[in-house]
Amino acid sequence: MASPSLTVDEQLAYLTKGCVDVVRPGELKTKLERGAPLTVKVGFDPTAPDLHLGHTVLLRKMKHFQDLGHRVVFLIGDFTGLIGDPTGRSKTRPPLTAEEIAGNADTYKSQVFKILDPAKTVVDFNSRWLQALGAEGLVKLAARYNVAQMLERRDFKQRYESGKPIAVHEFLYPLAQAYDSVFLKADVELGGTDQLFNLNVGRDIMPAYALEAQVVMTTPLLEGLDGVEKMSKSLGNYVGVTEPADEMFGKLMSVSDELMWRYDLLLTDYSVGEIDAIKARVAEGTVHPKQAKSDLARRIVADFHSAPDADRAAAAFEARFSRGELQVDDLPVLTIDIDEESVGLAKLLSLAGLASSASDATRKIQQGGARLNREKVSDARMRIEPTTNPVVLEVGRKAVRVVVRRAS
Amino acid sequence: MASPSLTVDEQLAYLTKGCVDVVRPGELKTKLERGAPLTVKVGFDPTAPDLHLGHTVLLRKMKHFQDLGHRVVFLIGDFTGLIGDPTGRSKTRPPLTAEEIAGNADTYKSQVFKILDPAKTVVDFNSRWLQALGAEGLVKLAARYNVAQMLERRDFKQRYESGKPIAVHEFLYPLAQAYDSVFLKADVELGGTDQLFNLNVGRDIMPAYALEAQVVMTTPLLEGLDGVEKMSKSLGNYVGVTEPADEMFGKLMSVSDELMWRYDLLLTDYSVGEIDAIKARVAEGTVHPKQAKSDLARRIVADFHSAPDADRAAAAFEARFSRGELQVDDLPVLTIDIDEESVGLAKLLSLAGLASSASDATRKIQQGGARLNREKVSDARMRIEPTTNPVVLEVGRKAVRVVVRRAS
Repeated sequence: MASPSLTVDEQLAYLTKGCVDVVRPGELKTKLERGAPLTVKVGFDPTAPDLHLGHTVLLRKMKHFQDLGHRVVFLIGDFTGLIGDPTGRSKTRPPLTAEEIAGNADTYKSQVFKILDPAKTVVDFNSRWLQALGAEGLVKLAARYNVAQMLERRDFKQRYESGKPIAVHEFLYPLAQAYDSVFLKADVELGGTDQLFNLNVGRDIMPAYALEAQVVMTTPLLEGLDGVEKMSKSLGNYVGVTEPADEMFGKLMSVSDELMWRYDLLLTDYSVGEIDAIKARVAEGTVHPKQAKSDLARRIVADFHSAPDADRAAAAFEARFSRGELQVDDLPVLTIDIDEESVGLAKLLSLAGLASSASDATRKIQQGGARLNREKVSDARMRIEPTTNPVVLEVGRKAVRVVVRRAS
Repeated sequence: MASPSLTVDEQLAYLTKGCVDVVRPGELKTKLERGAPLTVKVGFDPTAPDLHLGHTVLLRKMKHFQDLGHRVVFLIGDFTGLIGDPTGRSKTRPPLTAEEIAGNADTYKSQVFKILDPAKTVVDFNSRWLQALGAEGLVKLAARYNVAQMLERRDFKQRYESGKPIAVHEFLYPLAQAYDSVFLKADVELGGTDQLFNLNVGRDIMPAYALEAQVVMTTPLLEGLDGVEKMSKSLGNYVGVTEPADEMFGKLMSVSDELMWRYDLLLTDYSVGEIDAIKARVAEGTVHPKQAKSDLARRIVADFHSAPDADRAAAAFEARFSRGELQVDDLPVLTIDIDEESVGLAKLLSLAGLASSASDATRKIQQGGARLNREKVSDARMRIEPTTNPVVLEVGRKAVRVVVRRAS
């Protein structure tokens, strides 16, 4: 963890580590040089949260600002929640009641305060000022932005050009989000890469309210355990923040070496220098990659449970695997969608992240290193049909459970 | 004036007389057939009014609905007035105060109740329900319409395609206007032709609020005294509704025969059948065009003053002109913009409405029928340069004052 005694350049490196966009680093440096705590705003949906590690990339970036003494606003966007889905096309999003929103906020807090420091986090709700804007205030706000600027947002542009409807109120949400920054006098706004346009709207309108434009920073989407798709519940390639320590540890030990460095960057407080040092030790052979992976997994488990829990999980994992025991129930379950009636085993092993390609998998099968439901398989051209229950796949020491699903 | 004992088809003919757009006549007929009074909504700007006959075309159409027993809502759009000009580009439109708006409403009433029946007119203010909508209500309203639909409005389309900015709030005004129709449960909305798109937005969204779509009707822009440009204060070709009876009468007597029929249609309650009957009598020679014009002028003067005032004005006019007296000060003043250093006399006479064309004017000059500043002129190729004070032009008994201006 970085200490407040860092130089401004070191602070800048720590805060921007792993970010996709920083608009603009020079402005962030200027703000840091002033020495006063910055207000860092991050917006969250008011729907019921159930977080996985993918969500923690952004939370951890918030923590980095807290580490350096800044003030983080965890902003729940309940204004849109109170409206519900106004397009009338969906009956699945009725307005949330104030009680539901408060309940969701509590669920959020119980999860995010495993990473964030409650004492340095302001939890706020944007309905407080957006409702007070009134109809006139919203019209005045809408005067701050142009239709043509709005249509530059990628999804708007694509829909407009392909003739898919954009309801007028969709133009109001980026402006409402921008007004949040005005109200909060944000110095920095963080969000996922898909939020870049919306965050920049805040940047654009702040000067019209006699405020310095906020710095905009985006964090990347985290790759799931397969190292290919983004981490998501529906793809099954995730680690939930409320999972038991052993399960979390086992899942993290299944990732590739390459993905390990990515997780080191995005799921820990290691500085870039520290990660480079570990990489160097692995490269020169003084640290085994498995050890580096175990260190990573222990750090992450410790964040969501405790350091003793992490140590126990590491020891249990080590004991099982050194005894050659495969604890099937501890294996992560991936869901793999296929476009055809069945999928070749070699391709499946590669999709499941157990081989780097189908030909790599074929070679491993031919070398006798692959197992299906604990039985050795030797026919690389064997085909697997969609399954209801997970099948267990193994290549060497790596193992995973897979549900094969026909994409509809 | 039409009487309530008319058949539905006769009512339809009376109500649609002179309109440019009627969306849709069949729906209006259905509404009329039900026999219940209709709610007819017409919106007006909250800025200080100073009406001329051009504005009365719309007011008279409102009166036609009142003549048939319907309920007319004179709606002052004070919601936008309360916001002011939110683009920040203009310093000339600060928000109006509630007192200013009330004052402007009183000025409106003193002028429009010369045509409308106060007992059948509801004066209302849209801030009443638009402010109550709040920010959420406005977002929900904006969900009812698409960006692509909005960009079909001609001026939006032109600005978007030519790269001129459209501020997002400009999309909210047609929707606010549409919501007025929802709130008032309008059966019919009237407006000028330039309002067609906005009126149709109301039509489009009403069904989403479980209301029958309003019928939309537009009235044309009235040609000014010159018969060419639209009537406007800045062009000088207007008759103000507060002008003295003699001045009003004299200006109306200066219009061409062709324009007289247009004014008969748009500035009186004559039915189409009555106008056709007058036309027939003029065509067969039983009524002199000057008499028809005098009848028209008397009707209009009576609307804004009284029948005795109109008779007096007609008699005074007749006395002056039959004595060959030209009361220069009573002549209307037209402003005519020219693109060149000077304008030919023949062309000027035609632009001033004293001849049907430049060649007609040339013939009249050659016949000795034209005067410039009371002096007979015989050179049809004479050129007139821009003037500061009006020059008096006469052709036969027709006379007018003209300011020639160099278009910049």
